[in-house]
This record gives sequence, structure tokens and C-alpha cells, in this order.
Amino acid sequence: MLSRTNRTTIKKGTHKAEFEQQKLYDIIDESLIAHIALEGEQGPVVIPMLAWRVDNHVYIHGAKNSRLLRGLKKGAQTCLTFTLFDGWVLARSAFHHSAHYRSAVVFGSFEIIEDTNEKDRLLNHFIEQIAPGRTEEVRLSSPRELAATELLAIPLTEASVKIGKHGVNDDESDLEIPVWAGVLPYRTVVGPLETVPELEGKIDIPDYSAAYGSRWSNTPNSNNNA
Amino acid sequence: MLSRTNRTTIKKGTHKAEFEQQKLYDIIDESLIAHIALEGEQGPVVIPMLAWRVDNHVYIHGAKNSRLLRGLKKGAQTCLTFTLFDGWVLARSAFHHSAHYRSAVVFGSFEIIEDTNEKDRLLNHFIEQIAPGRTEEVRLSSPRELAATELLAIPLTEASVKIGKHGVNDDESDLEIPVWAGVLPYRTVVGPLETVPELEGKIDIPDYSAAYGSRWSNTPNSNNNA
Repeated sequence: MLSRTNRTTIKKGTHKAEFEQQKLYDIIDESLIAHIALEGEQGPVVIPMLAWRVDNHVYIHGAKNSRLLRGLKKGAQTCLTFTLFDGWVLARSAFHHSAHYRSAVVFGSFEIIEDTNEKDRLLNHFIEQIAPGRTEEVRLSSPRELAATELLAIPLTEASVKIGKHGVNDDESDLEIPVWAGVLPYRTVVGPLETVPELEGKIDIPDYSAAYGSRWSNTPNSNNNA
Repeated sequence: MLSRTNRTTIKKGTHKAEFEQQKLYDIIDESLIAHIALEGEQGPVVIPMLAWRVDNHVYIHGAKNSRLLRGLKKGAQTCLTFTLFDGWVLARSAFHHSAHYRSAVVFGSFEIIEDTNEKDRLLNHFIEQIAPGRTEEVRLSSPRELAATELLAIPLTEASVKIGKHGVNDDESDLEIPVWAGVLPYRTVVGPLETVPELEGKIDIPDYSAAYGSRWSNTPNSNNNA
């Protein structure tokens, strides 16, 4: 269960609040991108970073000399937000138009992972999430590459989750308006893989579909002229 | 052209920086979600908000009593970040794995739009972007609904854009490793429309494809068991 702290207590749209840890995990795992707050000299800055989860921590990485990571590794309180947009709710009145979405807001501070083996393990975990089996085929990182990579971790101990998946919620008096009403869904399609030119036709295309479930597609985008 | 200020000068990955205003507009128009920074009592908070663009401003809206909007309408410096994830670059070494993305970071402060007609116009503009023609069919907002809605605007005068769309960039010495390399693309599919049960078969389904170009789909998700 997600804890309720002063920062994570949802005050608006309370019916959309969720408290299962697994829902938090699912949103983070599908999002890929964390929007992270940093205090800048002229006000706050929000930076998008690749982020992945292993157990109850979220990890980010970057070059050792990255300005963003320098700011975050000082241990300051920060916030990571993950958002998935699922569609529009098209109501019979302009006012009741709304959105389907899933979002997670994580509070805390980052710690640096210094141990080289642990860095290697966690970075490889990320690749396995993207492309199952791939770390057995690619060249793994050298000590020099690992040393050049900063890896930061934040625990998932203070977080809130909101999921909007309601249907159309029109005023009773608007139900007779002769206009279509319903939901316009958005979904993400992953794939198919695009081989580098020099390997085209010369190597088997791997199957990473297991990581993507219903989002995986084997067919090229056929909607270009729809 | 996007101006270069202290806050918008990109220091890392400078080859990904873009300076055309239209590229900023395109990212905002496709994103729908702005991740907005707020100063909280215990540190910064990043909130996802629906955001839309009309000419050179971005607009957000919410209930009059929203805590977030109360914070933003004080005119404090803030940051809005828009990110689109386009895919994974799968290289021959773990180290060179990377991502395709488009992101825009906007700095400034919000102003309140007080004028009721202007609020009506801008909110209807948003609906037209989502569903062209729809404001001619739905019940438009009443003065009471408009009064209950806070609408905030931020000018697009200080912003930076980064677009990562490079191919696989392996070390020369890794090119002979017998592993597949290439790009795993992500794309968003919008539609088809899902009618509310009570109108099923009783009303024509509108055509909003013009707003979505190649992202529009008329076919239900057929990848569920792929």
C-alpha cells in the first residue's frame, strides 16, 4: 500500500487516487520517462530523463559530468512524475470534456550507486526490460564505460497515483443533445524493429515482443495515409 | 527562431538542440501533457496538466479552487516540459543504447485570462484541436461554468527544444559483433472512437481524423494477442 504523507495526499479528484503499490509500478514500467524537478538559479526546472524500476527503486543514469545529475546527487528533495495519456472523453457539453490518464508522482532524494558491479547489474537490467535476452549478445560495459556513467537511485517510499478512466459524465439535462459522445482512445504501438542498413537481410531479427504485450506490433505503420 | 537565454542554452547533447519555433510548436501540439514545476513547502513538485497552444501561448485550465493553479497564478517563475518518446536505439554495446525523443522546455510565468469571452474562445479552441467541428454540436459553456474555470496562459518566449533521432552509433571495434542492431520505434495510435452504450448504433460516428494525420486509426486494437 502507498503511504499517505502530507505531500502525497491527493486533494482534488480524490476518486481517482489509487493506493496499490503494483499500480505505481505498472505506470513507472510503462512510462519510461520521468519528469524530474530541479531547483535552478532562476526557478524550478523540469527535465525528462529515462527512468527504470528494479524492485522498489527507480534508477536514472547519465554522463558523470551531467549538470542535471550533479544537481540531483546532492541529495536535495526532488519529485519525479510519470504520465501516460490514454485518451479523450468527449461529452455532450464543452465543460465535461476530459481525459483518461495514469500518473504517478514520486517524492524523495537520490542516492549515488558507486559499486561498479551493481552499476553493471542495474544498467543491464534496464536493457533486459527493453529487449529481453539482449545483454547476452551485446558487448557489456567496460570498467571505463561504467566509470563514466553516473547511476542514481530513488526509493519508492513516498508516492501518489492517479488514474482517470471514467466514462462520459454528462449533466442529465444534456443527454438529449443530438451529438455523438464517447471516448477517443490513445495507445502506444511498439515495433516493428528497423534494422541498420548494413545488416539488412544478413541477420535474424530478434523477438522482443515479450516485453511489450499488447503494445507489440509486427506490422509497419500502415496508417500513413488514413 | 528560439532565443538563447541562460536557462535555454543546452549544454549537453548540443547536436540535438533545435532553434526553429515551428519545432517547438509541433512538440507542444502533439504532447498534450505539460509537466509543470511548482515550489512546494518541502521541495519542488512536478504536476502533469493538459496543455494546448494557440499562436504563441500555451494554455492550461482547471477548477477555480485548484491548489496547483493557485500556486501558478501568483506569477512565480515556472517551467513546463513536453516530451514525446519515439523509440529505442539498440546498439551493439550496452553503453551505446539510447533513445529517440523530442522534448521542449518552456520557462516563464503564467497570467490569468479573466475575460469570459476570451476564456470561451480559448477553451473551444482546445476542443476543436481534439475533435474538429465539435464545438458546433455540443452545448457550449455557460457563464457559470466559465466562471468556475481558471484559465492560465504562458507566452512561448523562452524555450529550448531537443530532438534525438540519430541512428545506431557503435564504436568501430564493435561493428563485427554478431548481434542485431537498429531502432525499436514507438508510435501513438489514436482511435477508433468508442461510442457510449446508450448511443451505440443510433448515431453517426464523427470523423476527427483530420486532427491526427498518420496517428489516426479506424481499426480496433488488433494486437492484443500478438
